[in-house]
Amino acid sequence: MIENKNQSRTSLSELGEFGLINHLTQNFKIQHKTTIKGVGDDAAVLEIKNKQLLVTTDLLVEGVHFDLSYMPLKHLGYKAVMVNLSDIYAMNGIASQITVSIAVSNRFTLEAIEELYEGIHLACNAYNVDLVGGDTTSSTTGLLISITAIGEAKKEDIVYRNTAKPNDLLVVTGDLGAAYLGLQVLEREKRVFEVNPNSQPDLTDYSYLVERQLKPEARKDIVKILKDLDVKPTAMIDISDGLSSEILHICTQSKVGCNLYEEKIPLDPQVISTCEEFDLNSTTIALSGGEDYELLFTISQEDFPKIKGNPHLTVIGHIADESVGANLITRAGQQITLTAQGWNALRD
Amino acid sequence: MIENKNQSRTSLSELGEFGLINHLTQNFKIQHKTTIKGVGDDAAVLEIKNKQLLVTTDLLVEGVHFDLSYMPLKHLGYKAVMVNLSDIYAMNGIASQITVSIAVSNRFTLEAIEELYEGIHLACNAYNVDLVGGDTTSSTTGLLISITAIGEAKKEDIVYRNTAKPNDLLVVTGDLGAAYLGLQVLEREKRVFEVNPNSQPDLTDYSYLVERQLKPEARKDIVKILKDLDVKPTAMIDISDGLSSEILHICTQSKVGCNLYEEKIPLDPQVISTCEEFDLNSTTIALSGGEDYELLFTISQEDFPKIKGNPHLTVIGHIADESVGANLITRAGQQITLTAQGWNALRD
Repeated sequence: MIENKNQSRTSLSELGEFGLINHLTQNFKIQHKTTIKGVGDDAAVLEIKNKQLLVTTDLLVEGVHFDLSYMPLKHLGYKAVMVNLSDIYAMNGIASQITVSIAVSNRFTLEAIEELYEGIHLACNAYNVDLVGGDTTSSTTGLLISITAIGEAKKEDIVYRNTAKPNDLLVVTGDLGAAYLGLQVLEREKRVFEVNPNSQPDLTDYSYLVERQLKPEARKDIVKILKDLDVKPTAMIDISDGLSSEILHICTQSKVGCNLYEEKIPLDPQVISTCEEFDLNSTTIALSGGEDYELLFTISQEDFPKIKGNPHLTVIGHIADESVGANLITRAGQQITLTAQGWNALRD
Repeated sequence: MIENKNQSRTSLSELGEFGLINHLTQNFKIQHKTTIKGVGDDAAVLEIKNKQLLVTTDLLVEGVHFDLSYMPLKHLGYKAVMVNLSDIYAMNGIASQITVSIAVSNRFTLEAIEELYEGIHLACNAYNVDLVGGDTTSSTTGLLISITAIGEAKKEDIVYRNTAKPNDLLVVTGDLGAAYLGLQVLEREKRVFEVNPNSQPDLTDYSYLVERQLKPEARKDIVKILKDLDVKPTAMIDISDGLSSEILHICTQSKVGCNLYEEKIPLDPQVISTCEEFDLNSTTIALSGGEDYELLFTISQEDFPKIKGNPHLTVIGHIADESVGANLITRAGQQITLTAQGWNALRD
């Protein structure tokens, strides 16, 4: 009725998620002195009397980010909080509050929503975070969860994405690829279940993978470990879309290149064996799988002795000049340009 | 597959939105000293070094909160920001930052999303607010907008809902009911358009109503006016669900009663004439229509001379003891118990 029918049409998938965000927000000017950092990092940074505040938000959509046929609602609630807290930790801050908004269709009962909130509650307790608000509304289809997390940090402790320097070491926490493989295992079981509803899934051999998919933990511990080790990363990001995509964010924003060594990428034995079973390349999974919620950071070489031998941390490469590009050095010594093939929320 | 099939089923509509929020959040304990106020007011209040921060969030769902057949995307973007800023002003604070998350289905083009962001941008500029983050993702159906607004206030300036006192005056800004009637007019035009796509709507007689529905303004000006008048309300809330519902929030949370005078409720002439045309009771519309985004507040009687004659402010009643209940005194002098028949997001 009021719609302009002659408008040109650009498909959103042409831009991709980050392209779209950049495109849409490029004309917004910062007007407040308290806004230290707006769009473009894991979290926004606000300043109040020398104390800085971190703000981040994520939207999870049924059928896009989760499938309730194998994701119990309690786990979903827990995971939805983790996804947000991870962004606060990726700024080297401590999460303190969250708001939770949900939209639910009438196929959800109170008991179902209670289960969801049980998971949210568990996450709040485990990570010492206050639920301070939200909105609850109906949806025409499915479930939506929008969480905003607020955190704090001293100004001098905050770590951005755009401050990596050539020769810094590239470090990753934990191991990679398991959450994506967990999803593959669960989807296979779902197909089996659809054919034979009496089948009882035996997920023993995939327990770690499934746990990484259904109940990820944000790396609050790493913020503390780094503080105890007296290491302040030069740049940091969390791994939600896959190692490649996150490395490229650091390289692009810091205007640097990097060499990532395939043989150094930390993989759990279940990742290796399941990749063989599914005939998948484990490096590809680590690079592009996503949902690991580990932290990727860079440190000055001087700090290497402090982190050496720490079981949580693996040096996987180093930062280089921008002219070098962002490369994967394969086990065979071949150099391949890194591309972001991470999960793209806007792919058709 | 993992779902528990024996769970009991309670329909969400039995509880209603506020019942559901209370129910879901009652077991969450506040853990941070910085959390001054969590769930239960227009915005959460966080404290950092004596400066207090306000946080509020709203989720708008296509088909539930808006209909794109008569809501231009630019207006929708603007309105989505207003809905949130209104909550900050209702705390007597100043909004400073927002995050915007959207989920879009692939029927939306880039140009459509740009239009939405144009409205958001316009709102940010007009209200001096920074866009500091968000999330952009795909949805399986329709458009969803989740906005979180952050604001600031001095501790001593913040006005809650639960601090109204007997004998305080009940004051409302602007006039009521127009946004709801605007929606009725637009829905009527939509039906006409569906029958005859060549019809050209003439909305001249309803311009104010339609503007109130499509482009509401949050009452930032009132926060300034009250400051200039040296009036600090004793309690305040914004009118999103209708006057009745908001008065009852103040009464319940402050443990007081009230008498609201029907003849005092401010109505625009277009509201009166359109109510006649649609055979609607204008008082019912003002009480239950919602989406006015005006402010409702209580002041001490001593402050009456300061607000007397102000064209933005209307005294519509007074607070009483809890035992009196919350009543509407009709033009005929009849006393009727107020009930919240405001828009209920979770009604079936």
